Amino acid sequence: MIEALLKRAKAEAPRAAALSTEEKRRALYAMADSLVSSRDEILSENRRDLSEAAESGDTRRDRLLLTEERIAAMAEGICRVAALPDPVGRILESRVTAAGLEITKVSVPFGVLAVIFESRPNVAADTAALALMSGNVSVLRPGRESYRSCRAIVDALHRGLAREGLDAHLVNLVEDRTREGAAALMRAEGLVDLLIPRGGAGLIRSCLENATVPCIETGTGICHIYVDRSADLSMALSILENAKTSRPSVCNAAEVVLVHRAVAGEFLPLMKERLTDVRQKEGKTPVELRLDRAAAGYIEGRAAGDRDFDSEFLDYILAVRVVENFDAAIAHIAAHSTHHSDAIVTEDKTRAERFLRLVDSAAVYVNASTRFTDGGEFGNGCEIGISTQKLHARGPMGLNELNTYKYLIRGHGEIRR
Amino acid sequence: MIEALLKRAKAEAPRAAALSTEEKRRALYAMADSLVSSRDEILSENRRDLSEAAESGDTRRDRLLLTEERIAAMAEGICRVAALPDPVGRILESRVTAAGLEITKVSVPFGVLAVIFESRPNVAADTAALALMSGNVSVLRPGRESYRSCRAIVDALHRGLAREGLDAHLVNLVEDRTREGAAALMRAEGLVDLLIPRGGAGLIRSCLENATVPCIETGTGICHIYVDRSADLSMALSILENAKTSRPSVCNAAEVVLVHRAVAGEFLPLMKERLTDVRQKEGKTPVELRLDRAAAGYIEGRAAGDRDFDSEFLDYILAVRVVENFDAAIAHIAAHSTHHSDAIVTEDKTRAERFLRLVDSAAVYVNASTRFTDGGEFGNGCEIGISTQKLHARGPMGLNELNTYKYLIRGHGEIRR
Repeated sequence: MIEALLKRAKAEAPRAAALSTEEKRRALYAMADSLVSSRDEILSENRRDLSEAAESGDTRRDRLLLTEERIAAMAEGICRVAALPDPVGRILESRVTAAGLEITKVSVPFGVLAVIFESRPNVAADTAALALMSGNVSVLRPGRESYRSCRAIVDALHRGLAREGLDAHLVNLVEDRTREGAAALMRAEGLVDLLIPRGGAGLIRSCLENATVPCIETGTGICHIYVDRSADLSMALSILENAKTSRPSVCNAAEVVLVHRAVAGEFLPLMKERLTDVRQKEGKTPVELRLDRAAAGYIEGRAAGDRDFDSEFLDYILAVRVVENFDAAIAHIAAHSTHHSDAIVTEDKTRAERFLRLVDSAAVYVNASTRFTDGGEFGNGCEIGISTQKLHARGPMGLNELNTYKYLIRGHGEIRR
Repeated sequence: MIEALLKRAKAEAPRAAALSTEEKRRALYAMADSLVSSRDEILSENRRDLSEAAESGDTRRDRLLLTEERIAAMAEGICRVAALPDPVGRILESRVTAAGLEITKVSVPFGVLAVIFESRPNVAADTAALALMSGNVSVLRPGRESYRSCRAIVDALHRGLAREGLDAHLVNLVEDRTREGAAALMRAEGLVDLLIPRGGAGLIRSCLENATVPCIETGTGICHIYVDRSADLSMALSILENAKTSRPSVCNAAEVVLVHRAVAGEFLPLMKERLTDVRQKEGKTPVELRLDRAAAGYIEGRAAGDRDFDSEFLDYILAVRVVENFDAAIAHIAAHSTHHSDAIVTEDKTRAERFLRLVDSAAVYVNASTRFTDGGEFGNGCEIGISTQKLHARGPMGLNELNTYKYLIRGHGEIRR
């Protein structure tokens, strides 16, 4: 069944690639309109998902919940995508070769973009919009818990497409809610041109293990803030609090602070005060500190366990380690980072540049919060995920990253000698 | 054992990435020198490989054989790589964000580049040079049949590195010649940053199935020449003969010709004469034609079997099909191409542009031989393989494609609101 769906999707791919910028924009506006006017159906199907989740003891209610406001936000998101520059058909290089061939390297859509996601039904609308604007056909495979909401969303998107005279197969929903359905997507060679998992570590791991189609690893962020001996400590406090507490559940939040021994005595008590005592007084959630042995010599807190420096807490928890010197900080990050985002706070320009060079992560920061690793903040205007691998795309992936390229070669009868 | 080797390689990666262009060039010249002066050792080890291969009935003698000339050619190849532009540290983008952050997207090496290859020992020298120039540490895993030759080559390269005061761990040879050795490389997450198989379909398939590290699919080429109804038939003959016969054993050679019905009656007899009769008279190997039913109505030849339109013959064999029209040619290519290189011969500019747009291959040609898909011919000066996938790199991969990128973000205490 999935094969039949993928074959139809693949057959639609050349038409998706050939859509003009104007056609894509009109389609996206129609999709956004249709979402808003299909509000009642979507909310009613979402209630069915929610009650089923409640029965099965699922605690992800907030992630699953749709409201009028959330549907309006989805529609707005689609309109924002429509306003972005079209990534298709950019001329990346052009040259005339020694043999006289005119070679043009041009950006083209991947073709069929499959996305396996969990919980949040808004990912369906978001992905469909990004795929369409980048000239791709989308194949959406939601988690079983949000299936009905996603079905209603995709039905609404189809009505929008139909209003512009476009084929429903531009946006596809996988009906098969079994594990086998996901596995079939991962191994649909020749039919799925790019697979992106959007979800937790388990899902990403499963794609990595099982996919034979091209797949991009996204997401997990064990992000470090290194407070150098030459740091402006008040800047360090502000960056650390922001990186840890402004939204602890996301991948660009900090999980670990490394503090140079020379400033540990001054910085750690200030940090404890700011992240726990002051926050408590202000009625905010205090941060639980998990201290290595050296840090425990300066402040009170729970002793860090072995896994605490390799955990994406996604919570108000911070692992704290005192390092002997700059090189020890670099070595710790090399051993424990997930290569997402890491930062140094320092006033020393030489060490700042060394940090930028030596840390092997998608985004390496000097004197700023890791929370900025985000398609919107980077100026892409959108994001389908943050790649933590090095192949194809690294860091926030926007519309350009949903294109590949090909070489067009125009000759005049040339043959190779 | 492989894990220990990979850990040392990984530890060397930051130093490889930090080498200046001049340091890399000096090292490459020293490596080339050392290869030539180690000629006798290399040839003697190569003789041992050859006699072992002969005993075991291996027929790949020519692929395995080294000679003084071939060693000189390897050394020359290394010098050519040294003359190419350094791909590391290119500023791909830079901007100041709304929040005031200075973001620079800069090209950086992958880190540890593992290459699994078969038969030809020159791949060891070639890969080591490309990896070094692109700032990567190489891990080479030759086939068991060429192991001794590769060991001698790598020993020579190490002596060259030593002369420049560089660490031998920049170039690594996997000693483990078992299948488990290859499998361990494919699954060395966090230690292998990029895996490239250089060899036959079986090896590539195995990497695709088993690799959990980022892997690039290279090579297989079922390339098509479509002779349109508006083709200059004499140009078509010349392109087809070149694409099929100038070097049938390589991936950019043509395997299939599609002929528009309107010109089949005129073209096919000319083609048969040129590819079989004339070649025979000139003492060249004639091409065996495998004809679909329609083509068999025009000329004599063996009837094509089902698999003949899905085979990379790598030999003087050509599958021939007559198509009803342009769309049938596009559909055939979509169903049977390996997305490597496909060409149209036509004088009709509209159809030429439609072909360029609709054919989903790394290199799409109008009026030229598919044999031009090659790093050297494309003007890259080198090539580590031809990617037939869409992720990261497509078509010929040169030094730039052996780099990824990262974002350097310089702030002044910015936090995210």
